[in-house]
Amino acid sequence: MAMKKKPVTGMKDILPREMEIRDYAIGLIKDTYRSFGFTSVETPAVEHIENLSSNQGGENEKLIFKILKRGDKLTSAVSKMATEPDTGILTDSGLRYDLTLPLSRYYANNANDLPSPFKALQMGSVWRADRPQRGRYRQFMQCDIDILGEPGIIAEIELILATTTLLGKLDFSRFTIRINDRRILKAMAAYSGFDEADYDTVFIILDKMDKIGLDGVREELLKEGYATDKVDKYLGMYSKLVGDGSSDNSNSEEYDSAAKAESSIANIRLIKDTLGDYLDDEVSENLETIITSVENAKSADFGVQFDPTLVRGMSYYTGPIFEISMDEYGGSVGGGGRYDEMIGKFTGQQTPAVGFSIGFERIVMLLLESDFQVPGAGTKKAYLIEKKMPADKLRKILEKAKEERENGTTVNVSIMKKNKKFQKEKMQEEGYTEFEEFFCDREF
Amino acid sequence: MAMKKKPVTGMKDILPREMEIRDYAIGLIKDTYRSFGFTSVETPAVEHIENLSSNQGGENEKLIFKILKRGDKLTSAVSKMATEPDTGILTDSGLRYDLTLPLSRYYANNANDLPSPFKALQMGSVWRADRPQRGRYRQFMQCDIDILGEPGIIAEIELILATTTLLGKLDFSRFTIRINDRRILKAMAAYSGFDEADYDTVFIILDKMDKIGLDGVREELLKEGYATDKVDKYLGMYSKLVGDGSSDNSNSEEYDSAAKAESSIANIRLIKDTLGDYLDDEVSENLETIITSVENAKSADFGVQFDPTLVRGMSYYTGPIFEISMDEYGGSVGGGGRYDEMIGKFTGQQTPAVGFSIGFERIVMLLLESDFQVPGAGTKKAYLIEKKMPADKLRKILEKAKEERENGTTVNVSIMKKNKKFQKEKMQEEGYTEFEEFFCDREF
Repeated sequence: MAMKKKPVTGMKDILPREMEIRDYAIGLIKDTYRSFGFTSVETPAVEHIENLSSNQGGENEKLIFKILKRGDKLTSAVSKMATEPDTGILTDSGLRYDLTLPLSRYYANNANDLPSPFKALQMGSVWRADRPQRGRYRQFMQCDIDILGEPGIIAEIELILATTTLLGKLDFSRFTIRINDRRILKAMAAYSGFDEADYDTVFIILDKMDKIGLDGVREELLKEGYATDKVDKYLGMYSKLVGDGSSDNSNSEEYDSAAKAESSIANIRLIKDTLGDYLDDEVSENLETIITSVENAKSADFGVQFDPTLVRGMSYYTGPIFEISMDEYGGSVGGGGRYDEMIGKFTGQQTPAVGFSIGFERIVMLLLESDFQVPGAGTKKAYLIEKKMPADKLRKILEKAKEERENGTTVNVSIMKKNKKFQKEKMQEEGYTEFEEFFCDREF
Repeated sequence: MAMKKKPVTGMKDILPREMEIRDYAIGLIKDTYRSFGFTSVETPAVEHIENLSSNQGGENEKLIFKILKRGDKLTSAVSKMATEPDTGILTDSGLRYDLTLPLSRYYANNANDLPSPFKALQMGSVWRADRPQRGRYRQFMQCDIDILGEPGIIAEIELILATTTLLGKLDFSRFTIRINDRRILKAMAAYSGFDEADYDTVFIILDKMDKIGLDGVREELLKEGYATDKVDKYLGMYSKLVGDGSSDNSNSEEYDSAAKAESSIANIRLIKDTLGDYLDDEVSENLETIITSVENAKSADFGVQFDPTLVRGMSYYTGPIFEISMDEYGGSVGGGGRYDEMIGKFTGQQTPAVGFSIGFERIVMLLLESDFQVPGAGTKKAYLIEKKMPADKLRKILEKAKEERENGTTVNVSIMKKNKKFQKEKMQEEGYTEFEEFFCDREF
C-alpha cells in the first residue's frame, strides 16, 4: 500500500522553528505556574465515551474522534449493527476534546491522594473533528490551571495573576482581562423579566454585542420573539454600561489600566444599585475585590475590565468568568471561570472549582508572527570533520565536544560536505554562529 | 448517564509526585539533546491507517487504536457493511504506536525545510492496545533521537554519547550499552548455512539466549527442523563468544568498562577472522570504532559491550543495533539502530537513518522507586491567610507574594483552615518548608 506523506486532514507536523518557541513557552509556563504553587498532572488522551457525551462539553461533543472497539466487542457490535444500525455501539472511548472534563474525572478518582485545595497545571493535546480552517487544527495543545476545593475569590485572583504574569514574561503587554459573573448575567436577565428557560438563548445573542452592537442585539432578541418591554429594559441597562456596544477600540497610545479598573468599579456599582435584590451583594463586592486586587498586585502591563456582555460559551460556569483580549489578535487568547457544580457530577459531592485556560496555539502563533527570539539559547557551534577520520583523531574531537557541551555550548558534530560554504550557510540559518574544521591529515 | 471515575482500561492518571519527576526528566532530556545539536519536532498523534498498516511496525500493527470515520463517510461505510462485513472500512486513521514511522512520514513531507543531516528529538505519547499488565500501559511516552541523512558512524557514536550523557545526568551508572550489527547477525547465519528465508526465525530463537542459554537455543533450533550440522556450526561460534550464553551477572563490585570494551574488540576480531568473506571488513571495523570512541569520549559511568546475540525485534534495522541494559531493571531501558531503508518507502529516495529511543516510562519508574529527589526545586513557602481578609490587606499580601516569586520562591497563597496544624502537615508532605500566617485583625 502506498504510504501517505501528508499528515491526516486538519492536523500538522510541527517544524523546528515553531518547536523552539513551543518548548520555550512550555518551560516558562511550568516555571511560572510552579512559582504560584501549581503542580503538574496528566490524564490519558483517551476517555470513556460516556464521560465525553455527558453534556459537559457543549458543542464540542459533536466533534469527538471516536475510537473503534476491538476484538470480541467489535465483532459483537458489528453483528448487532445488522438489526440496529446505530454507530454508537461501535465505540467505547474517544479522544478528549478539552482538559476540564478529564480533570474533573481525575479529581474524583484521586481526591484522597491530592492536597486540598488542589492547584493543578495541565498541558496536553486535545482533539476536535472541526471543519479544517486556516490556523485552526484538529489537534491542538491546551494549557489549563485550575484550583479545586477553594470557594473563595483568592482562587480567581491567583489564577488571573498567574496567567498574566506568564503573558508578561512572554513579552505580551497592554492586553485586557475582561471579567463578568454568571450570576450578574442571570440577575440582569431576571430583572428584565426573562424566564430562566430563555437565559441561554438570550446570552448567546448578548455574546454578539462586540460584533453587531446594541442595535443588532436588540433586533435579534425581538426576532426571537421576546416582548419589547423586556428587551428595552434589558438593553437599557447595557446602554448605560457599554454605550452603543461596539468594541472599545481605544487608541493604544491612551492605554490606561487604572482608568479601566476605575470605570469597571463604577459600572459594577451602577448594576448593583439597579438590580437591588436581584443580585446578592457578595457577588458584586467580590468582583470589585478581584478587579482591585489584580490591578494592584499585577506584575505585567495589562488592564482588568468589567464587561457585562461577556458570556463564555460553556453552560457549566457558575460564578466569575474571564477572558483575555489582545489587540494584536482579533479574538480571545484565553479564558476561564468558576464551575462549582461539575465535579459533583462525578463524586456526588459538590467541590468548588475555578480554572483559567490560555490559548497556547494562538500565543505560539503570535510569537511566531512577531519573529520572537527565544532568549538565552546559548552558543551554537558546529564541528565539521572530514570523512574517514582516523579513530584516534576522532576521539580527540569527541573529547573536545564533550568539554564544550559541559560548558553549556551546543556542539553539532557533522561530516564536512563537498560544498562546505553551502553547508555553513544552511547551518547559520539554524542559528550556528561558530564553526571549527577538522582534517584527517592535520594536527589539532 | 453515569460518569466514570476511573481512566479507560490500561491507561493511567499521573499524580503530582510522578509528574514532578517526569517534568524534570523532560527538561533534562531537552537540554542535553539540544547540546548535541538535536532539534525538537512533533507529529500528530493520529496517523493515516494506511501508514500504520504498512508493515513497518511489526507486531505493533495488531495493537492499533483505530478511529471511527465521521459524517457521510461513516454512513456510507456502515451501509456497505451490510454486504461486506469488513470492519476495516469503518476507519481511516488511528493512534500512532511508535514515533519512528511518523518521523519517516514527517521527513518525507518536510525534507526541503529541514537541515541535512537532520538531528531530530521527539517526545510524545504512543498508544498500543496491549493486554493490560502491571507497570505497562496502553498510553506511554516515547523519547527518540534520530539522525537522518548521515551514512557514517559518527551518527551512531553521537546518538550513544547523547543518550548515555543524559542517563548519567539522571544519576544512572554502571549500565551497559550492548551493541551488534544486523549484518554480523546475517553473516553468522549465512556462514553456518542457513537460508536467508530462515533468518528471522533463527534470530527470534537466538534472541532468547540470555533467558534459555546456549543449550536452550540449540534445542529450539533443532525443534524448528534445522539440520544439526548448521546448528552446531552456528552455536559453535556463539559458544566461543559468550560461553554458555547465560547472562553476564558479574558482580557490580567488579564493574570494569575498559575490560568490557577490550573483550568486545577481541570478540569482534574473532568473528571477523572466522567469517572471512561472509562479512565486509568495514562492518567490523566500524563496530570497533564505535566501541572505542564511546568508551573514550563518554561522560557517564557505563560500559559498551559487543553482544553477538543482540537481535532487536524490528526487521527494519539494516546496520548497527544497540540496547541499554541496567542491573536494577531486568530488561532493556532503551535501544535503537540504523534503518537505512525505511524513509525510502515514503520518498522513493534512500535516506540513511539511525535512531536511539530511551524507555522513558521505565526510567521514570526507576527514579520513582529509588525515591529520586528532583534537584534545585527552590524554596516552597505557604501563605496561610484568614478568611474574609479586607481588600487593602489582601493587596499587601499579594504584593509580598509577587516579590518573593520574582526572587525564585514558590509562594502558595491559601485560606487558613480550622485545623491549621493538619493543613501544614499536609503541605509539608508536598514539600512546603516555610509558612507565614496572616490575620485580618493584625498588622503585617
